[in-house]
Amino acid sequence: MKVNGIQHRSIRPNADGWSVDIIDQTLLPHAFVMRNLRAVEDAAEAIREMRVRGAPLIGATVAYGLALAMRAAPDDECLARSCRLLAATRPTAVNLRWALERMRRVLSAQVPQRREQTAYALAAAICEEDVDINRRIGEHGLTLIRDIHQRRGANASLHILTHCNAGWLATVDWGTALAPIYQAHDSGLPVHVWVDETRPRNQGAALTAWELSAHGIPHDVIVDNAGGHLMQHGLVDLCITGTDRTTRGGDVCNKIGTYLKALAAGDNQVPFYVALPSPTIDWSITDGLAAVPIEERDPSEVTEVAGLNSAGKMDRVRITPAATPARNFAFDITPARLITGLITERGICAASEHGLLSLFPERAGAGE
Amino acid sequence: MKVNGIQHRSIRPNADGWSVDIIDQTLLPHAFVMRNLRAVEDAAEAIREMRVRGAPLIGATVAYGLALAMRAAPDDECLARSCRLLAATRPTAVNLRWALERMRRVLSAQVPQRREQTAYALAAAICEEDVDINRRIGEHGLTLIRDIHQRRGANASLHILTHCNAGWLATVDWGTALAPIYQAHDSGLPVHVWVDETRPRNQGAALTAWELSAHGIPHDVIVDNAGGHLMQHGLVDLCITGTDRTTRGGDVCNKIGTYLKALAAGDNQVPFYVALPSPTIDWSITDGLAAVPIEERDPSEVTEVAGLNSAGKMDRVRITPAATPARNFAFDITPARLITGLITERGICAASEHGLLSLFPERAGAGE
Repeated sequence: MKVNGIQHRSIRPNADGWSVDIIDQTLLPHAFVMRNLRAVEDAAEAIREMRVRGAPLIGATVAYGLALAMRAAPDDECLARSCRLLAATRPTAVNLRWALERMRRVLSAQVPQRREQTAYALAAAICEEDVDINRRIGEHGLTLIRDIHQRRGANASLHILTHCNAGWLATVDWGTALAPIYQAHDSGLPVHVWVDETRPRNQGAALTAWELSAHGIPHDVIVDNAGGHLMQHGLVDLCITGTDRTTRGGDVCNKIGTYLKALAAGDNQVPFYVALPSPTIDWSITDGLAAVPIEERDPSEVTEVAGLNSAGKMDRVRITPAATPARNFAFDITPARLITGLITERGICAASEHGLLSLFPERAGAGE
Repeated sequence: MKVNGIQHRSIRPNADGWSVDIIDQTLLPHAFVMRNLRAVEDAAEAIREMRVRGAPLIGATVAYGLALAMRAAPDDECLARSCRLLAATRPTAVNLRWALERMRRVLSAQVPQRREQTAYALAAAICEEDVDINRRIGEHGLTLIRDIHQRRGANASLHILTHCNAGWLATVDWGTALAPIYQAHDSGLPVHVWVDETRPRNQGAALTAWELSAHGIPHDVIVDNAGGHLMQHGLVDLCITGTDRTTRGGDVCNKIGTYLKALAAGDNQVPFYVALPSPTIDWSITDGLAAVPIEERDPSEVTEVAGLNSAGKMDRVRITPAATPARNFAFDITPARLITGLITERGICAASEHGLLSLFPERAGAGE
């Protein structure tokens, strides 16, 4: 998407034809700095330090990391060592291991002298696949937004609430939840976005707000507490969030707080949609509440807040008393009954096993 | 309540017999500093700078401010000037004007040479009335907590979720929502409190956590997004919040985000109670959503977070991009249908006109 009018991606080959450019997301939203990866060690460092984050972008970075490794030394020893290095960066990232395994399988099957070229081609293909999936999610979501806009009347601005960051910074381009919003804005629909700040890590206030601001989409940041009030007063036309994992039954595991917004949407008859690429559907489980363990993260993410201080420097401030403990639950489960529909690359369906199988019939019978 | 084992109040006469001690709440939770008020100007400054906050405490500070004024000069001119000075500190605070009017009426009726003594006596009475109301709220809430604890079994710790700060720092002592929790803890019940941080001003993370920590009550701070997840997993036995204003119909206007917690409580069969002193009931309105205007505050409370920086100094950090706008809605309405009961100084009742009139029969027929 655009930054200051120039089309960007979260990762892409440099003009030199071999090194790889990323955006250093740890500096956002306060500075927009590109970073040039020139070795597999650079790619590993970028993932470990969360300069890149979001499952699809981590997968793409792993793929380009192995391409850089094969350029340096296309032998079996370097391939094995590079895979180990990249695998250790974010031990729990499913997409990381998926991309790594896919690259390793293809590269091992090649003679060393063809590995560099193959790796770059496959990394590019992995990126294009992600962009294509997200573009399709955006197209299907656009029809939904257009329908709601038409029902509301031609001149009314359409207010869409989103939680966390499921934008192009988390993917290679477009994003998932934000893809329909970008397409609506680019096609001239008057969209305005309510951006939940998304404590504790503030991905909404930092990343979603920055994306929308850079692309020129009207938006306002609100605290996570505010969405219910807005919905009570008719100030939200539609909610769209992303998801980390969707069950066969349509339950959604997403950033903590998503469930509360879905409850408010249900209480106020506001449509609540979740956008997802089909690789994030977990066909092996049905009941999200019973089957998905919720990661608990470092309490310092709750007790400390990062930002730009009064001297214009990045800093952290502690908001709690020194002796006070905190708990930091990373995700929650939004039950399928609270979700109006799922927006996938194959279309929109009900949040249910029946709905998902209508779009992915090849998965019938592959359940628990 | 206690700080480091010593009994405190949020305001009280100094041992010198005439000046007044408050806690400088702008420094909490990072420093516990008493401040000595020696003139009406000191009282006005303390209210204006929010060194004291919370409706009952503001009322008490106004009362003692006028006592200090009458000590300095008990004439009509000083009384009028002091009233104007205090009224201008927080133009929208209802309790401030109520306390001011009550003091002014009594003092004007006295000859100047009796005004100092009368003012100190009335200020003390206003404080004692507040303490008495909150103590009774605590006693009624205690029976509720004891019932739930008995149903749950003797050894299980009881988890209570609260939002914002409705503790002793907002009143003279005990608090409203926290009064039942203090009494439960002091009577030996094993309570543990989930403290919503309460963005944007973080009164939960700063003030409620500090109060509980100082009094020795087990607690954990959580982000405002987390309560739904906790309730889904059976980790909340009871919610108790305060309220700024309660309608005749039982709708509650409280800190933004209260409504979302009430929705989650309803969805998970968790009892949701609101504690309130009867002076905060607005008998003139029934429908909170239609009749209560919601204050919108400075967006910088959303875009900036205050705390203790890495150098141990108070500072603010900005969490949003420079160009990103924010909206800051201060309160929301929790409809009566989501509230299990109201805890008042006269007992616990249903959140309805019928329920409230059963405790306050003198209000029958005084409605819209």
